[in-house]
Amino acid sequence: MLLKSVIWQHVTFAELQESPLYVPLHSYEGKEEKEVICVEYGSSPSEQVRQASGCLQSILEAPKYSFSRWTILDYSTAYNSKLITPRKVIDRFLSAVHQSSTCSMQMSFFINFDADDILRQATMSTNRYEQGKPLSVLDGVPIAIKDEIDCMPYPTTGGTKWMHKVRGCKDDAECVKRLRSCGAILVGKTNMHELGAGTSGINPHYGTTRNPYNVARIAGGSSSGSAAVVAAGLCPAALGVDGGGSVRMPAALCGVVGFKPTFGRVSHSGILPLNWTVGMVGILAGTVEDALLVYAAISSPKSLDQSETAQAKLCFPQLKSPKLIPNIKLAKYGEWFNDCSDDIRVCCSQALAKLYKSYGWKTIEVTVPEIEVMRLAHYVTIGSECNTSIARQLEKLNKEELGWDARVALSVYGSFSSQEYLNAQRIRNRQLQIHKRIFSKADVIVTPTTGVTAYTIEKDAGETGELDYINGAALVRYQIAGNFLGLPAVTIPVGYDMSGLPIGIQFIGKPWDESLLIHIAFAMQALCISEYKRPEVFFDLLGK
Amino acid sequence: MLLKSVIWQHVTFAELQESPLYVPLHSYEGKEEKEVICVEYGSSPSEQVRQASGCLQSILEAPKYSFSRWTILDYSTAYNSKLITPRKVIDRFLSAVHQSSTCSMQMSFFINFDADDILRQATMSTNRYEQGKPLSVLDGVPIAIKDEIDCMPYPTTGGTKWMHKVRGCKDDAECVKRLRSCGAILVGKTNMHELGAGTSGINPHYGTTRNPYNVARIAGGSSSGSAAVVAAGLCPAALGVDGGGSVRMPAALCGVVGFKPTFGRVSHSGILPLNWTVGMVGILAGTVEDALLVYAAISSPKSLDQSETAQAKLCFPQLKSPKLIPNIKLAKYGEWFNDCSDDIRVCCSQALAKLYKSYGWKTIEVTVPEIEVMRLAHYVTIGSECNTSIARQLEKLNKEELGWDARVALSVYGSFSSQEYLNAQRIRNRQLQIHKRIFSKADVIVTPTTGVTAYTIEKDAGETGELDYINGAALVRYQIAGNFLGLPAVTIPVGYDMSGLPIGIQFIGKPWDESLLIHIAFAMQALCISEYKRPEVFFDLLGK
Repeated sequence: MLLKSVIWQHVTFAELQESPLYVPLHSYEGKEEKEVICVEYGSSPSEQVRQASGCLQSILEAPKYSFSRWTILDYSTAYNSKLITPRKVIDRFLSAVHQSSTCSMQMSFFINFDADDILRQATMSTNRYEQGKPLSVLDGVPIAIKDEIDCMPYPTTGGTKWMHKVRGCKDDAECVKRLRSCGAILVGKTNMHELGAGTSGINPHYGTTRNPYNVARIAGGSSSGSAAVVAAGLCPAALGVDGGGSVRMPAALCGVVGFKPTFGRVSHSGILPLNWTVGMVGILAGTVEDALLVYAAISSPKSLDQSETAQAKLCFPQLKSPKLIPNIKLAKYGEWFNDCSDDIRVCCSQALAKLYKSYGWKTIEVTVPEIEVMRLAHYVTIGSECNTSIARQLEKLNKEELGWDARVALSVYGSFSSQEYLNAQRIRNRQLQIHKRIFSKADVIVTPTTGVTAYTIEKDAGETGELDYINGAALVRYQIAGNFLGLPAVTIPVGYDMSGLPIGIQFIGKPWDESLLIHIAFAMQALCISEYKRPEVFFDLLGK
Repeated sequence: MLLKSVIWQHVTFAELQESPLYVPLHSYEGKEEKEVICVEYGSSPSEQVRQASGCLQSILEAPKYSFSRWTILDYSTAYNSKLITPRKVIDRFLSAVHQSSTCSMQMSFFINFDADDILRQATMSTNRYEQGKPLSVLDGVPIAIKDEIDCMPYPTTGGTKWMHKVRGCKDDAECVKRLRSCGAILVGKTNMHELGAGTSGINPHYGTTRNPYNVARIAGGSSSGSAAVVAAGLCPAALGVDGGGSVRMPAALCGVVGFKPTFGRVSHSGILPLNWTVGMVGILAGTVEDALLVYAAISSPKSLDQSETAQAKLCFPQLKSPKLIPNIKLAKYGEWFNDCSDDIRVCCSQALAKLYKSYGWKTIEVTVPEIEVMRLAHYVTIGSECNTSIARQLEKLNKEELGWDARVALSVYGSFSSQEYLNAQRIRNRQLQIHKRIFSKADVIVTPTTGVTAYTIEKDAGETGELDYINGAALVRYQIAGNFLGLPAVTIPVGYDMSGLPIGIQFIGKPWDESLLIHIAFAMQALCISEYKRPEVFFDLLGK
């Protein structure tokens, strides 16, 4: 098999001086934070959300969507001013989900949702607003959860037919607990690629999530449903998990914001343990501001040491005028940046040109050597960890319960030697040094988010699953550093290809410096948001 | 193969909830240090040695060896009072090494030593004493270095016939640099088990290091030569490397002190990279005081964070009367403690009884579950890392350049899957939690150091190498936590078996708390040292 032979050459017998770097948990280099609010260690999620929403007060006059894509603040304002109740919004939500599931649409957004449970949450939220006591700006806001994250009262399938039978869900994941404590309405478990082991979102067990911009196209994956529900207006935000671009790729393909914080920033407790060193909870949202609010709810200052003397501070950027962020240096590796479809290259280049023109920012031309080797090393890592984490269950499993692509993936995953795994970690160390050198010269690295836009769902793919290594490689091309090196990364919609399919641009940031990354994403969004297009499949839950 | 089948059962398909713990680098839990001197971050090695020697001033009346085993302070005193010069000592040293290499003795202490280089160092040291300017109490003291550690002007063979041909030695290892800066005379590269991949010290390429207490017996390994030269009086101390008991086992078998500090305490720079997560430089010495002085020279406060806010302090115990250490609690797992030869069990139990009687210390009975599983997991780990680190060289190597036991070991090492490696790291996490619970109740864990004493060198073993899994397992039985969990550990001679072969007792300490461990070892030594026996092969370099 070709894949094994390139791994043999570039990983198994790679010439490496480096020692292994097993976990990309970065130390925190204290720096003076400007134009940010940093939270106290031990603050409650709702207090953190309150502080983050304070960062948004001055942007009420910023450019907005040209169509009715409602933000969290829109919901909160509507509830507070009694224009609508959470109960009414949820009625519309349930009716929209019903409509999207009909034979004519078959969007396959959700794996599980429980109307009674959702209505119960909506009633409680409505009561809180009636008493004038919402828990936070997230109170009553519908938020969907990828089915890789524990959320009561649902099983956690991981997109499989069997995972929930061998691993019960007994409690909310930590990130879900935090959202719940802010009053968010958890509206069900979104569809995903089986075991997160693919990038298309084609799932033979629960249906293929369709792209709201073109229902003949994939939504991308593995967090397919979470991206699609946000694009379709069902939720202003959703949670995903990003082990190899699984939040950012579907976000880009569905024309929404996708944000993966630094490795370790969000608790991994209650996430299916499909890997240990590359996966992270991520956020899909309609706007950067909404991504910030959800980030504020689920993240915390990270203690890097049992004694808690070392901590990675958690800060939120003051989103005033984007022009106020001076002298940003964007590292760009031209050859890599251009390794994508013509439409994407042109669109992302124009977006960059706008940034330079509007804010006076600059490009630093860099080279990122051995990107393909890094991708192979990441593949060996995530594959080895996935195989190990479920090896006992796989032993007992009737293989017919797996889709064909998952069967192939798992048999490759199970074939790696300890030498391959260890050399992959040495490559991780090598790439970390390479990236450190780049970050000594630049604030962020900029790339397109994907090499292709949403491709067509083949007729028979839905029944068996699909392995498309060509499109798959083009999708993940720009994702790996975010996972393998634990770097924070964000994708922002910047336009559409000739077929009207969304295109994203990606910024990869320094460890723990999410605030700058969000600030830059906000500045990018300000230049594009008024030209965002309404998807084919779209629901307006707040409209009159 | 039986080994593979137990690994299959206990590692490959182990039922584990734990995530992997890849590197046993512990955080530092600040505590109030009593009766210790803590060094400033950035102190020079000679300044650290000065501070450590200050801790010994009050023990000049402590019990001493009944024979002429000279300590570092004996050398220093003799040099300062002009009773003898370093040059004269080195003349005697060279003559002793020559004598030990004759056909009638064949001790095989060294793989390489360069008389001219050693004489040059001795002359420079002699000049410093003549000028009244010794660099430290280590000035002029002969110290030998295991041939796994870079030390100019020697190649670093790792006990092989080929390693030095593919990896040149271009500089001293960091620990050697530090000893050199204190004026120590580096007297050559000691023999070792090939690649550190065995515990007997039988080396088909450089001869089998013989035990100075009985030349028909092994010295133990893999730091065989370093243990034997200290036992034979050629050096008061030597450096070894301990990846699976490789310092402590030969120390116990040769009747000397063996001390492995916490993982990360001593720089690994310039050590053959045969593994990344279990090996540590260790010290072999005639007395606990000498181990402390060498430890002071080679170790440093460990920065646990790039920002250097988190540091593991480096402290030396004030070695006054051992009775002054109150209320020590020794964790003992009875069944495990007794899983050794009758002589060892009786001898170590009597040593413990003496401790209790003399100091009023107490035993806490504990259980350490899954010790055998931990040994297998450690074996998978050290084997996988060794194989990976030299895989490229092995590819090109004519296998006839390897001893038979190394050939077998390396083919097992190369057979491990990534699943086995990852599950081994999950077992590491599990054992760390188990040990944390024990250390919440006790100060140290006490065990015999080995399950057997030095066994007989079989006639043909020297030519081919030897794999003795029965004796090998009995030797490493008590070693693994020190390596796999990165815990500091020390072995002290406490007596002899019926054949007059040395027996050691081991104390395993809490992470970073070497000072208490050294203090306890000192207290143990005080009760035994006057009964230590002179080895069969022994050289008196200071005598008149």
